[in-house]
Amino acid sequence: MHSIAIHGGAGAVPRHTLTAEREQRYRDGLAAALDLGYDTLEKGGCSLDAVTAAVRSLEDNPLFNAGCGAALARDGAAELDAAIMEGRQQRAGAVAAVRHVRNPVELARKVMEKSRHVLLVGAGAEEFALEEGLALVPNAYFRTEERRAQLESERGGRPVSDLFPSSQGTVGAVALDAAGDLAAATSTGGMTNKRQGRVGDSPIIGAGTYAKNGVCAVSATGHGEYFIRAVAAHHICAAVEYRGLTLSEAVRELLHQKLRELGGSGGVIAIGRDGGIVTEFSTEGMFRGIRDSSGQRRIDIY
Amino acid sequence: MHSIAIHGGAGAVPRHTLTAEREQRYRDGLAAALDLGYDTLEKGGCSLDAVTAAVRSLEDNPLFNAGCGAALARDGAAELDAAIMEGRQQRAGAVAAVRHVRNPVELARKVMEKSRHVLLVGAGAEEFALEEGLALVPNAYFRTEERRAQLESERGGRPVSDLFPSSQGTVGAVALDAAGDLAAATSTGGMTNKRQGRVGDSPIIGAGTYAKNGVCAVSATGHGEYFIRAVAAHHICAAVEYRGLTLSEAVRELLHQKLRELGGSGGVIAIGRDGGIVTEFSTEGMFRGIRDSSGQRRIDIY
Repeated sequence: MHSIAIHGGAGAVPRHTLTAEREQRYRDGLAAALDLGYDTLEKGGCSLDAVTAAVRSLEDNPLFNAGCGAALARDGAAELDAAIMEGRQQRAGAVAAVRHVRNPVELARKVMEKSRHVLLVGAGAEEFALEEGLALVPNAYFRTEERRAQLESERGGRPVSDLFPSSQGTVGAVALDAAGDLAAATSTGGMTNKRQGRVGDSPIIGAGTYAKNGVCAVSATGHGEYFIRAVAAHHICAAVEYRGLTLSEAVRELLHQKLRELGGSGGVIAIGRDGGIVTEFSTEGMFRGIRDSSGQRRIDIY
Repeated sequence: MHSIAIHGGAGAVPRHTLTAEREQRYRDGLAAALDLGYDTLEKGGCSLDAVTAAVRSLEDNPLFNAGCGAALARDGAAELDAAIMEGRQQRAGAVAAVRHVRNPVELARKVMEKSRHVLLVGAGAEEFALEEGLALVPNAYFRTEERRAQLESERGGRPVSDLFPSSQGTVGAVALDAAGDLAAATSTGGMTNKRQGRVGDSPIIGAGTYAKNGVCAVSATGHGEYFIRAVAAHHICAAVEYRGLTLSEAVRELLHQKLRELGGSGGVIAIGRDGGIVTEFSTEGMFRGIRDSSGQRRIDIY
């Protein structure tokens, strides 16, 4: 059994704002990332490579809020966060507040594999990227016309989430490979109009990203501050490991009880030790895709 | 019942490196911070104010690795991280990689109380500090001769931890007030000779700092990367809340099983819902102090 799930963000995605043509572009982007990740598994690749490939594809797609097409901060720049974790040894790597790294998920993986550290932020993370031979790109690479319009809208007091899809977006992937190894990765541009240096849950191990072999791999999306305070991904993992909840029960408890009590909303994708996939959200929709070796393959938004 | 516990770092603190005179200075510094925090509780102040006062005192003391006297990064500058969390509503604030904020714990508290965010890093965190009226200080304020010597020693390939006390230091406090509210705070300069932008567990909610009313408040110290991967503070809290372990059992499991499996060491202070204090470490020593309304008051190193 091998399986993969991806998300392209949860949030207010009112159906009426999503034209059929636009919806199809989202579906195509999700399908491309899903199949890239799945093909990696199908060819015997490891779950780390699968989630890296899927997230990199979503980062490169300007529709999603990560990498190219990231939401813009208050000062008009894109500022990116990402994390990756593998479940066997529970190694992890993450970066936050980087402005010139084309694929933050790749840098997070370099942090995990090539440094003594787990989390690097800002200019120090970019120095490490250069040392590791990753080419830096100008910040303009990430900025799209649509994100500029969203930033203007937010600045004018009209919250983006009522006007545009995927404003709370984040992208992520979880996978189980044939060897039984779980992995998770998450990448984001964060909130539109965020303060410079604001870091959400995506790069926080245990909040937006977590993996433990024999239990589950989790990637979250939504209002990051609440996911940090809930230690969301670890909350789910601990509920499965220690309380005997099913993965689905644990995810639903997190989203519909724990986060709701705090006042937050969002979505989660998770894969259990047996490859079973859970996707759940407390928002109107979540861009997502799932595929596994039983032949199941789905792309969904609502 | 009200109680407070503080730590000034765990690590290799070989007895022979600690002269009687030097040990007394550490004990005096711990006692001053402990009593400041305790007096806050004794006067009816809340646990948030108590942990803030205690940590601020340790930040201001050049002996401890936080604020003035912080360990120096590879480029010779001090770079500081801190977090604070309260257990009633589980609000939290944290800052990382700041270089000009005299008391990072105060800025973390401002993030919690005055921003929409939980974690701010780098220049953006300092911009917020200025907006909130905190005066910035030159980086030289934090640097002491002893930390410069430690950096030189590390650069020369002689690990600081074999030569000087408290090199893995971090400071922290946990408290329970008369209203039953728990709080935790942690502050650090991180590892000597760390890469710029490296963030340890101290400012990561769920890793180095966590509080939940009715369960426990936790502040950790040690090799931060392992505490992040273990989601250490939340692991302890979840073990008490959901698995029925005593706080002491949960702390010992984290330090002596979970962290040991990953290869890490360090120390933890924690206070339970009943005000009971746990201090535990897997290193040779941990600077620590405890005091409660039953009259108990202790300062210990080994």
